[in-house]
Order: sequence, then C-alpha cells, then structure tokens
Amino acid sequence: MDYSLLLDAFGRDHARHAWPRQRLLHECLRAAIRDGTLAAGTRLLATRALAQELGIARNTVLYAYEQLACEGFVIPDRRGTVVAGIAPAPRRRSADVPQAGLARRAQNLRTVNGTASVALPFTPGVPDLRAFPLAQWRRLLDRAWRGLSFDQLNYGDPAGESALRTAIADYLRASRGVVCEPGQVFITDGTQASLDLCAHACADAGDIAWIENPGYGGALAAFRGAGLVVEGIAVDGEGMAPSLHDWSVRRPKLIYTTPSHQYPIGVVTSAARRLALIDGARAAGALIVEDDYDSEFRHEGPPLAAMQGLVPDAPVLYCGTFSKTMFPALRIGFVVVPAGLAPQLAVMRAQSAAAGRTAEQLALAEFLRSGEFALHLRRMRRLYRQRRDALVEALGRHVGSHAVVEGASAGMHLALRLPADGIADVEIVRRARAQGIVVNALSAHAVPGGAPVNGLLLGYAQVPVERMDALVERLAGVMLDRP
Amino acid sequence: MDYSLLLDAFGRDHARHAWPRQRLLHECLRAAIRDGTLAAGTRLLATRALAQELGIARNTVLYAYEQLACEGFVIPDRRGTVVAGIAPAPRRRSADVPQAGLARRAQNLRTVNGTASVALPFTPGVPDLRAFPLAQWRRLLDRAWRGLSFDQLNYGDPAGESALRTAIADYLRASRGVVCEPGQVFITDGTQASLDLCAHACADAGDIAWIENPGYGGALAAFRGAGLVVEGIAVDGEGMAPSLHDWSVRRPKLIYTTPSHQYPIGVVTSAARRLALIDGARAAGALIVEDDYDSEFRHEGPPLAAMQGLVPDAPVLYCGTFSKTMFPALRIGFVVVPAGLAPQLAVMRAQSAAAGRTAEQLALAEFLRSGEFALHLRRMRRLYRQRRDALVEALGRHVGSHAVVEGASAGMHLALRLPADGIADVEIVRRARAQGIVVNALSAHAVPGGAPVNGLLLGYAQVPVERMDALVERLAGVMLDRP
Repeated sequence: MDYSLLLDAFGRDHARHAWPRQRLLHECLRAAIRDGTLAAGTRLLATRALAQELGIARNTVLYAYEQLACEGFVIPDRRGTVVAGIAPAPRRRSADVPQAGLARRAQNLRTVNGTASVALPFTPGVPDLRAFPLAQWRRLLDRAWRGLSFDQLNYGDPAGESALRTAIADYLRASRGVVCEPGQVFITDGTQASLDLCAHACADAGDIAWIENPGYGGALAAFRGAGLVVEGIAVDGEGMAPSLHDWSVRRPKLIYTTPSHQYPIGVVTSAARRLALIDGARAAGALIVEDDYDSEFRHEGPPLAAMQGLVPDAPVLYCGTFSKTMFPALRIGFVVVPAGLAPQLAVMRAQSAAAGRTAEQLALAEFLRSGEFALHLRRMRRLYRQRRDALVEALGRHVGSHAVVEGASAGMHLALRLPADGIADVEIVRRARAQGIVVNALSAHAVPGGAPVNGLLLGYAQVPVERMDALVERLAGVMLDRP
Repeated sequence: MDYSLLLDAFGRDHARHAWPRQRLLHECLRAAIRDGTLAAGTRLLATRALAQELGIARNTVLYAYEQLACEGFVIPDRRGTVVAGIAPAPRRRSADVPQAGLARRAQNLRTVNGTASVALPFTPGVPDLRAFPLAQWRRLLDRAWRGLSFDQLNYGDPAGESALRTAIADYLRASRGVVCEPGQVFITDGTQASLDLCAHACADAGDIAWIENPGYGGALAAFRGAGLVVEGIAVDGEGMAPSLHDWSVRRPKLIYTTPSHQYPIGVVTSAARRLALIDGARAAGALIVEDDYDSEFRHEGPPLAAMQGLVPDAPVLYCGTFSKTMFPALRIGFVVVPAGLAPQLAVMRAQSAAAGRTAEQLALAEFLRSGEFALHLRRMRRLYRQRRDALVEALGRHVGSHAVVEGASAGMHLALRLPADGIADVEIVRRARAQGIVVNALSAHAVPGGAPVNGLLLGYAQVPVERMDALVERLAGVMLDRP
C-alpha cells in the first residue's frame, strides 16, 4: 500500500478543491475505499507510521481515520484500523485494448477438454491423490525449509539442485535403465516446461518435428510455440511407425514419442521399433524426445527399459515428471540430455530460466533417497493394477464387443476404440459429463491433417474398485445410447 | 528401483551362462552395485517383498543377499539391507551424440556474468535475504499445506489461484496505481516466464520487438526465443526514447520497457515520455510490456504510478515479481493483461502451461492479505535507502569525478558511468571479482548493434552500511588502478 502514490494521484484529480491536508487525506482514503482500491478487510497503516511516511503531523492522520470511522468506512479494532465491508461503488473499469490483439499463434487454440480441478471418475492423467503420503511429504518439506540457509533464498542452480539431480540419476539408472550422470539431468517445472526446453534448444524455427498421431497435445503446443513445423506420424500396434517416405520427405530435426505407454492409444513400442527409430534419427541428424511419463506403472508383459539406455549413444532427450508418480501440483519434472549437449544447455538454462525452489527440490531429493518414493510407487502399482483389472472386466460386461480396449498393459488409463461410423466420441464426452463422468475424446488428440480416430480415453487411477462396475454401467448407457 | 527390469537386462547380457536363479540374482545385484546403478546407501527391497515382486521363492533372495553381505557389497542393519560404500567400478559412460546437436538459437549464447549462488557485495538484483522474515513465511507455508485438501494436489487453475490473483490485484491498485480486476492477473513462475508468455501470446515469429538499449538481457533472450526480431531503442535521461524514424521504419509489435527504474541505467521514465510511448504504441497497434520490477523501492522524487494505470485504456501488459520484494528462490511472478485479452490468454495458458503449486500460492496470498508483505516492504525501503545513501557518499569520497552516478533515485542498484576511453568495464568486473566484489558490466547490457557503453552496475541491497566505505574503497582501487 503506497499511500503517497494514492494521495498524489488523488490530489492531482482534485487540485481545484485546495483542501486542507487532513481533509485531502480523508477524501482520498474514502475514495479509495469506495472504488475498491482499498478492499474490505485491508488493515490501514498505523497512524504514527503513516504520518512518518507522508511527512505530516500524526494528528492529521488521526483526524482522517476518525472521520472514516464515523462514516462507517473503517472499523477500529484492538490492532488498529480495518476497512469495513461496505459495497464499493463501481470501480473504474479497464477498457479493452482497441487495436493491439493477441498473436496469430495464440488464436484459434483448441479449448482444453475436461481440465476439471476436481478429479472425477475416469479423468485421465490424474493419479490417486488420496493415496499420496501427504503428511510424510509435509514433514520432509518443513524439514527442508528449516534447514535452509538465507543464502539458499537466492537464485538457485539453473540446472537444478545437485542433490536432486543425483537422486534422479540414481533412480533412473536402477529403475528405468537410463544411462546418465547427474550432470546430464536438468530439473524443470514439469513436462510442459521440459518440452519447451527441448523444442527451443534442439530445433530452430521452421525445422520439422514429428509427433505421434494421435498424440499428446502438449507436445504439439510446445513445438508450435517454438515455431517448429509439426508433422503427425501414424501409430500402429508396435508404436510410432514412420514410413521410408516420411524419413526422406518429412525429414525431422526432433521426434517426440511416448514409447512406454503411447499417449493416448496406450500401445507399448516394441524393442525392434525402438532400435529402428534410433537408427533413423541418427541417420537424419535428429534428436528423439522420449516422454517416459507413464512408465512406472507396468501391469503385464516383459519389462522394457527406456529407449535412452537401449544403445550406448542413443540421440535421446529423456523426459520424466513427478506429476503422475506423486501429484500434479508439485510441478517438478526433468530432462536427461546426451552428455555432449549438457554443458551448452547449462549455459542456455542460466540465461533463459531463473531457478530457485530450493527447499522443494531438496525435500524431493530426500523423498527419493530415503526410499519413500519407491515404497509409494510399489503401493500405487498394486492399486492401479487392481483398478485396471476391474475396469477391463466391467467394460467386458457392459460394453462387450461395441468397443475395443487398447493400451491397458501399462499406465493409468486405457483407450476404448469406437466404430468409425458410430456416435462421435466428442458427443459421448459431452453426454458423459452430464452424468458426472469425465472421459477424453481420442479425436481431440488427432494431429491436424492426420487420419481421423473415434474413441475414448479412460483414466482409472482414481476410481476405487468397488465403484467401477456401477460407473462403467452408467458410461455404457451413454455410449450405447441406452436410457 | 525396478528389480525385474534390472534382472531382465542382466539376464540378456549374460544369457550364455545359464545360471541358476539364485546365482543370477546375486550376480545381477553385484554388477549393479559395482557399476553404481545401485548407489551406496540404497536400501534394498525386503526379501519377502522382492520375492513377491519377482515371483520367486524367498529363499532365493535370502541366498543372494547373504552372498552380497559376505562379499561386503551390502550391510545388513536393523531395518534391512543397505548397499555398502565401496568404490564402484567405472560405470558405462554415455557417449556424445554424434550428429545431432543443439539448435542455432541455442548456440553462441553469451555466458552470464556473475550468477553467484552466494550474494557477494554489489551483486545486482539480489535483495537482502537475511532481512526476510523467513520464520513467518515458513509458518504461513506450513499452514497452507496443512489446510490443503487432497483435491488441491491436482493441477491448479492455469491462471493461478484465485485468492492470490485477488490479493495481487488489491495490492497493485492501492500501491502501484494499476487498474485491474483479479481476472486480468496471471500468475507465472517469475519474470522470465512472464516475458516468455508475453512474447508468445502477443507477437508472431518475425514481428519486431523493441527493448531499451542498454537493456535487460532476459527480455532479449525471451523475445529471441519466441522468434521475434529485436531492435534496441536508445535510452536518454527521460527513459526510452524512440525517434520518429524508429516508429515508421522499425514499427514494433511489442515494446519492452522498465519505466520505474530503467534496467540497467536506472533512469525513471518521465510522465511525458510515458504518455508518448502509450500514444505511439496505440498508433502502431503494438503492446507495451511494462516490467515494474524495482518500483517498490523509491528513494526520492515524486511518486510515479505504473504506466498501466496512466490512461484508461493503455495497451500495456504489466509484469511484476516477488523475487526482489521477497526472495528469488520463491519463483512467483505475474502479468496483468488488458481486460480484452484475458479470456483468450486463459485458454492459451490452459493449453501450454500446466499449473499447480497451490500451497505456495495460498501462502503468498495470505502474506499479502495479512499486511505482512506491506510491513516487510516498508522495512526494506528504509534499509535500502540508508544503504544507497552510504554508497553514494562513499563513491563521492573514493571515486569522485572519475565516474558519474546514475539511477540512484529508486531500486536496489545504481549505475556508474565510466569514461569511454578509460579501462573497459569488463576488465574492472574481472579484477573486482578477484577482490571478492561482484559488479556487472554495463557493456554486457548493450543490445547487439546498438551504441557502445562503458560502466558498472552496483547492487547495494545486501551491503550493510558499516561495510560500505571499505568496500567502495577497495572497488575504487580496482577502478582507478591503484595498488
């Protein structure tokens, strides 16, 4: 609250009145309260402090406060003077900007489907938040804050706190077969930030970037934001399937793929396809962005390590996040970059991304190091497998042959492929929403210009087993247009 | 720690041995410990749990663990089995990527000058961290976490928590003369993120963006990252001074300016110049990005409200941060956008920036609402004014007419203009660093292609009054090349 600024602006507006100082202050404060500039509940500065700040006598301030109290604009209490909860007069409105508008790239954006702040049944991409050991996390966080020195309130390492980079490297080596040193790990604010970083660091405006089709909208947004030309590449039963024609005519600089559990279809990319993609990328001089977002929850089949560690010098940027394994509001993710790119990327990071959040990063490092994270993962894996089983069974019972389940072998969601000539998925999404069920439309994930798809995405991570059957029955009613 | 993945990869590598299962597990774990995949201090999974996870007999696991313990690779303790601190054999190294490298835009970046993680005397842009009421902040944060529902662990509002947007709007109206409603306030991860947002939302690749010359390197990086063509506009004693020629030949789409305290020169933009800039922007169909970063600390002269509120429909995006008023590691900033742009920007945000950090945002809202923030600001204003006075005095004593002090009327730093034919500022920076003093070179802030400058940036926020004279004397010795 800058009272001298307030007073000065008011004085200029009302210069014709030539009020004495105490009247001027009173009128100024009253106007600010009336137009909402001083909101209800705001505590006014103590009279002595305000007098000092404005360089006026304390009596002048006392007079103004008393007048306001008499008029009911402020309420004196034990600790001072508080603005009363009166209805303010309509405030000056900020008018629209006349000429200047948003950039072309910010227009005609697709509206996001179903970003409900409360996770409803089948909302994809949201873990079971109630199962997170929140009390334990709070304790680690509080301990990290208590251990923080004043110097650690300053800007942090732009690559991330060393302890966290080490803990992540340890975890990835042991759990995902990623070959890396802590120096290759860069901490980000989550996968979207990681994709922005990859797009800006590894491709120039006008370069071609591949994404799977259907594919992850966040990658499309990040790549377009960086000025890249995005091409959708078909996905078949073995994963991303570029043709020879794609490699020669749509030669990529960047390739985005989700090999552990393709988003949205859910197919796991075969080992042969992974090796072919690495060879192709190497020949094209391209880098692969491996988004390993769902890899921690594998429900069946042989274990598949990350592409990054598959061959010694894979041209891969490996992205991961704690949004699904811990909780989305945490906002911490990471990219593992090839060792040869790490030094230059550190320079780029230092220049374009101020860093901090030291306490949060140290708490997360401790969560990983102490084994709490591994324990939580194991619990979640068991829970999600049970829920997946229940969902697949219920779908068999209520939907039967009307739709085909895909991608249920890993992750926290599955895809339900619908007949191309049946009800459009967006229509089912709309009707399901009215029933309190959130599902995503596969068609919303089609890359513009790519093949059409019809289907649904069902997240099962937050749906208890005992509620599954009734919810699927309700959804089946919507899908099959039963009353 | 994914043991099945570890075992599977090891089994493939050593398929020729046809080991019995207990031997295979033992060899696999030993190899993982030796190459550092299982780091020292890692707690192995309990025998019963591992047997279950791998679908093998518990005795098999017991055998493997006992063998490892005999060999000294693991240490049994009360709670289980921990990897011993032996020196690991050299780990597989990730080779460099052969063909694919970084994008052109990520190369040839200037290395950042003086991003010391510990604030040394005269490091610009760092507040007095020791003066921050850290215990109070920890309490608010802990309270916010305790009050959080499980649902609030989910993705948050992409525009930011409503309580924080309201608290910021209230503060800006009362303290900075900004005309805004909470719906116009967008929370970001700090000014760099705000600038990225402004650049991507309000200009297309190839559009012209103006920045002050000399100017803020972060704006240059953000605008170039968005593919904009950046033009440096000269700054004179009244602020940013575009010529008629600039308006006609280098017609901008975006204009970045720091009117409250120009970065780095420190000049306060005059009211006449502010109005002229708004008029010019409106005529050109451009938007102004007002970075009000240092405005809270005004040491002398008449109060100047933000440009944003100067005229009713100013085409201004107003950026602020809590990095200077609270502490950099917090990583919370904001942009106030024209009301007409807010709805479309909300859509853009929802698509391109996952949000969360709910507890931190609620704690900050409470810090603002309770008056603690205003109290802290008042204390800091007094402190910084004293330190500025001490610095200006000491400079007069030790440097005298060898350099001209500029921009000392506001903020946390001042500029020291050096003769064009004297020692180059970068050389002084280098020598001062050897004396434990961090100053920034003005020449590092020259926009490529713009006029050359020679001078220093001195941050005084973290330098106690009683140390000022001795430090300035030491700096003067470096500047004047005295032994």
